[in-house]
Amino acid sequence: MATYEILKEEGRAKRAVFHTVHGDIQTPVFMNVGTVAAIKGAVSTQDLKDVKCQVELSNTYHLHVRTGDKLIKEVGGLHKFMVWDRPILTDSGGFQVFSLSGLRKIKEEGVYFNSHIDGRKIFMGPEESMQIQSNLGSTIAMAFDECPSSVAERKYVEDSVARTTRWLERCKTEMARLNSLEDTVNKEQLLFGINQGAIFDDIRIDHAKKIAEMDLDGYAIGGLAVGESHEDMYHILDVTVPHLPKNKPTYLMGVGTPANILEAVERGVDFFDCVYPTRNGRHGHLYTNHGKINLFNQKYEKDMSPIEEGCQCPACKHYSRAYIRHLLKAKEMLGMRLCVLHNLYFYNTMMEEIRDALDAGRFHEYKAEKLYNMSQGQK
Amino acid sequence: MATYEILKEEGRAKRAVFHTVHGDIQTPVFMNVGTVAAIKGAVSTQDLKDVKCQVELSNTYHLHVRTGDKLIKEVGGLHKFMVWDRPILTDSGGFQVFSLSGLRKIKEEGVYFNSHIDGRKIFMGPEESMQIQSNLGSTIAMAFDECPSSVAERKYVEDSVARTTRWLERCKTEMARLNSLEDTVNKEQLLFGINQGAIFDDIRIDHAKKIAEMDLDGYAIGGLAVGESHEDMYHILDVTVPHLPKNKPTYLMGVGTPANILEAVERGVDFFDCVYPTRNGRHGHLYTNHGKINLFNQKYEKDMSPIEEGCQCPACKHYSRAYIRHLLKAKEMLGMRLCVLHNLYFYNTMMEEIRDALDAGRFHEYKAEKLYNMSQGQK
Repeated sequence: MATYEILKEEGRAKRAVFHTVHGDIQTPVFMNVGTVAAIKGAVSTQDLKDVKCQVELSNTYHLHVRTGDKLIKEVGGLHKFMVWDRPILTDSGGFQVFSLSGLRKIKEEGVYFNSHIDGRKIFMGPEESMQIQSNLGSTIAMAFDECPSSVAERKYVEDSVARTTRWLERCKTEMARLNSLEDTVNKEQLLFGINQGAIFDDIRIDHAKKIAEMDLDGYAIGGLAVGESHEDMYHILDVTVPHLPKNKPTYLMGVGTPANILEAVERGVDFFDCVYPTRNGRHGHLYTNHGKINLFNQKYEKDMSPIEEGCQCPACKHYSRAYIRHLLKAKEMLGMRLCVLHNLYFYNTMMEEIRDALDAGRFHEYKAEKLYNMSQGQK
Repeated sequence: MATYEILKEEGRAKRAVFHTVHGDIQTPVFMNVGTVAAIKGAVSTQDLKDVKCQVELSNTYHLHVRTGDKLIKEVGGLHKFMVWDRPILTDSGGFQVFSLSGLRKIKEEGVYFNSHIDGRKIFMGPEESMQIQSNLGSTIAMAFDECPSSVAERKYVEDSVARTTRWLERCKTEMARLNSLEDTVNKEQLLFGINQGAIFDDIRIDHAKKIAEMDLDGYAIGGLAVGESHEDMYHILDVTVPHLPKNKPTYLMGVGTPANILEAVERGVDFFDCVYPTRNGRHGHLYTNHGKINLFNQKYEKDMSPIEEGCQCPACKHYSRAYIRHLLKAKEMLGMRLCVLHNLYFYNTMMEEIRDALDAGRFHEYKAEKLYNMSQGQK
């Protein structure tokens, strides 16, 4: 059983530690996305340790349709398969079912859809999602939910959220059953529920209250960063987070930019994940404390300074902007790898700075400084 | 000025050390190919140290048409650009001019051709090749030559080789001039001449004798491994190597399989380079002491053993065949990276074993054992 210990608070911002069977997670934390049990950009789990990653996030849907969770269970689970001894969070597969599969039919029992790999018909409901995540043996499993569009109509969102609540109850029951089985990879697998409700305050609040009663291991806010404005996102956090249990981790799914994270920490969120650092890295877009830079810009052609002066990431410790730009232009994989390593290091280091600032009781000051510096642009 | 010191001999096989301005090269040595100043498969110069690489090889043609040798000179040369403090060998660009450019015209002064990147017209002759390599500042520059087809007619080969000899004289003169200039990156750049002659014994021998008189820093055998049989290749080595200076390094260009290397070492060759370990690695073909394996084979699906038991490479130290196979099937770059690292480590380790065997006066025994083991296939 995991325990969540709040070490310090500043306004709604929380500095905490989440004790799990795979080690402690110091929060606020940014989880590094390794979709199919690998971080895109030729980054290994050994590399993840070098960029200060605490939690790896893998995608249930991708691992289910390719290679397969059953095979991964047979070889001892995801930790053993990808050689990672720290916490892993798996998503429920729901988001990919809704975003990747063309034809799908949502029923009370779950979702019927076609694999995006080979088109074969697949059914996934709460029980199937829990079974797959149990086979993977992740530290934290996410509940199977529907993520309605941010512009969906009120009636649709109401019905969807009601079903998501019923699905959550089934997830909890199935998870308890799976964790009690003899041959389960991780018998202490945790379950996080997911709050939905698009941008309707009352639906969000009502749903938050309902799931808060279910005594889950943690609570996520889903369905944000899917097209709504930043203001809408911050507003939903403002009204929803206070209705989620404060004594449990709060996870904002799929978010976001450094600024989004700072704003959300201030609103009480402590778990994050996002593909920005990896995806942007693969395109030569790099995060620095003076804003983002695009290495394809010709002004870096002969720039022998590192991506960011003083940065201790595996790229900046050795290589120059000029060299990495050359690699990117020549389409050498090494260019992407170095950029992804830098961006993950930047994100993970920012989270460390956030934790240090909270420890020192100066988060608000830190946040203002960081946002100001990042808005100044490159010198 | 580099010196070449033979430490031990066994038949024609030589165990030597080549002292250069960028450090000693223990031979026999396999040079690791980093075409555009990067090893394909997201492998960095830091990684090269982990896989025991002594000499990195970069391609003059590729660096000239993309990014440009002038830019690299401006930032301090290739060593500084790619952050590698050990020896670098650059080829002359000739091979790529002949193999990559569609339309080309060979004249006494050099070759007129179109860039394979943007089609623009380029001229490269001996002086241009030396100038580019001088701009790169490599440890060893290769002479600009023509590599005639292994099935070219005798008359064509005779004329081509005669021109290659005249080009070599021009290379030597230009290199001496460049090394004497104030702003030259590496004023001690070395020049290796290249023996040609397709598979005509007498042309090879005659050419070897001619270039041996020119007192170059080393001698390469080019125009092999371009389509002729292994028997033809070994025969050409048998008849040619004895006519090259024994007190200088002997480099067999673009060769080859582990067996090719063992046979060539026995015939007096001590420098090698080949794209096999990187190219095969990117396709999941892996070298082991029990023969090559293809990780795409389904039998490795649940195989949690490393690529090779006991191997200390960065892939085998942590990851399993099952995991790497999964990565390759999912087209994750990390799969290629791990396979390339393993294959380079295998090659560089084999060279280390060859040197150890020569030191111990048991090269012939080692060679027989290695060939026997590799022919046995996987257990």
